[in-house]
Amino acid sequence: MMKPPARIAITGAAGQISYSLLFRIASGDMLGQDQPVILHLLEIPPAMKGLDGVVMELNDCAFPLLNSIVTGSDSREIFGDVDYAILVGAKPRGLGMERKDLLLQNADIFSDQGKALNESAKRNARVLVVGNPANTNALIASANALDLDVSQFTAMTRLDHNRAIHKLATKVGASSAMIQKLIIWGNHSATQYPDITHAQVDGQPAKNLVDEGWLKSVFVPGVQQRGVAIQESRGASSAASAASAAIDHMRTWIKGTDARDWTSMAISSDGSYGIDTGLISSFPVVCKNGQYTTVEGLEVDSVTKQGILNSVVELKEERDAVRHLL
Amino acid sequence: MMKPPARIAITGAAGQISYSLLFRIASGDMLGQDQPVILHLLEIPPAMKGLDGVVMELNDCAFPLLNSIVTGSDSREIFGDVDYAILVGAKPRGLGMERKDLLLQNADIFSDQGKALNESAKRNARVLVVGNPANTNALIASANALDLDVSQFTAMTRLDHNRAIHKLATKVGASSAMIQKLIIWGNHSATQYPDITHAQVDGQPAKNLVDEGWLKSVFVPGVQQRGVAIQESRGASSAASAASAAIDHMRTWIKGTDARDWTSMAISSDGSYGIDTGLISSFPVVCKNGQYTTVEGLEVDSVTKQGILNSVVELKEERDAVRHLL
Repeated sequence: MMKPPARIAITGAAGQISYSLLFRIASGDMLGQDQPVILHLLEIPPAMKGLDGVVMELNDCAFPLLNSIVTGSDSREIFGDVDYAILVGAKPRGLGMERKDLLLQNADIFSDQGKALNESAKRNARVLVVGNPANTNALIASANALDLDVSQFTAMTRLDHNRAIHKLATKVGASSAMIQKLIIWGNHSATQYPDITHAQVDGQPAKNLVDEGWLKSVFVPGVQQRGVAIQESRGASSAASAASAAIDHMRTWIKGTDARDWTSMAISSDGSYGIDTGLISSFPVVCKNGQYTTVEGLEVDSVTKQGILNSVVELKEERDAVRHLL
Repeated sequence: MMKPPARIAITGAAGQISYSLLFRIASGDMLGQDQPVILHLLEIPPAMKGLDGVVMELNDCAFPLLNSIVTGSDSREIFGDVDYAILVGAKPRGLGMERKDLLLQNADIFSDQGKALNESAKRNARVLVVGNPANTNALIASANALDLDVSQFTAMTRLDHNRAIHKLATKVGASSAMIQKLIIWGNHSATQYPDITHAQVDGQPAKNLVDEGWLKSVFVPGVQQRGVAIQESRGASSAASAASAAIDHMRTWIKGTDARDWTSMAISSDGSYGIDTGLISSFPVVCKNGQYTTVEGLEVDSVTKQGILNSVVELKEERDAVRHLL
């Protein structure tokens, strides 16, 4: 007997990340092979024709788990009764646009979507923000969803986490599956701080296997700047890898982290590790029974502390720029 | 304990279909969650930079099952020791190019790839041709792989099969999962013949649920022309749905069809249903223990017979045009 279908909203549904995301969700990669899904797809009116084509292709897959598809441009309607919302759609940075202008334009979108989720979504809906600036967009959405708990709003640093895993694995000649307990701290931006202090390679401390010089001049900047490197090689920004990270983020949140591992999620800070309460910042978290918990009490060395601080400064600047919407 | 990794070659690896295909294979959708994979990615030299970007993104997913990736432009090297080959890359039809010119250009590619598979691939390799004209490309590849069995070469009509399932399901108000025993006959082209004579909807005969008029003027042409409709709506040809069908085709071949169902695969005809021996044509097949068997003895009504005949005429014309390579 099949479970009742889960309703999943995806915004920016006709975009490139969604084109990689939707088919994997419909195939069962996110919620499992026993969970039918109803896709709720939001797009702006000029993109509706392209979205119609995507819907045709989704139907053409005859996915056994894909119950049905709803599309539209009205966020209150599309967010109706959703169990999960993956907010992918965001305005990209236009030519000559200042970072602050971008922040403000997206702030309006996420303020509206926070209100719409508040009005329409299931009371226990789980929200993942992928659209950039993801942390601050999540902060705005959460602040505008007064009846939902801040813990229901998260932003994605799993792509950074996965990138860091691969980079470390390659360096030490291991497979990605052998790497555990990496951490991404802070903002999903170039100020993020990837931390291997507690990481393990097949159970051995990673820091014994790499030197300080590599960490400082290759690993940290390599993870921070990976998005730019992809953009340069592909001539397009990360799409399939971002979609894959979104699936990982949601699946881990719902199904749990592995027994001796944790993951990185940007969540509302409770003040842990000196990060200002209420900022949406990336932390190491353990997931169990559909809930995440910050991993507390880890030792943070002075280099890492400085890295976290730099990113928190940026998060506070972003927050202050959108203060009128919080 | 993990199984030893399977080697999967994909050609046209930097193209749109592959961009949807590779990440799903690496996530385990094709061979299952207990089967590590090594991807062998073939591209032409001008596309290698784009392929590098795709490889970066695959790595950035930290897929636990993705053992490693090999890339290159030499088919003999890339097909080395592969267990599976999905031949996606083909020359698209250029402006003003005749169908016959297209056929001949692709014939050269698939003749070479058949020889390369013959020299390099595992002796029991399974080959799926996706690149068009898929049936005749598969015929050429097979004819040039003298030490491999013709049964190792198949072409994809699963996309048509899936499209037909969805179209019938929508018409009768069922879900795709409730539809069984549809058939695509013939060529993966506009002459293909989608046949619901033996199809069931939740165990009931589908033909009792729809009328002849709908079948003739909506269903059959709708499935035959679906690719054009997608192209018009998306402004691009089917990519994610073609990738999904390729995964379905391979998974079904390896893992088997469901107990009371069959699927459609284009395979070398043994003369069944009056289709000329040796043509690669789509048939209803049952898969079990990694082998497919044509479903024999089905009654074929006169309308279906005519539909099959039309498609076989086209397959013979294509074969005759590339006779020098067979």
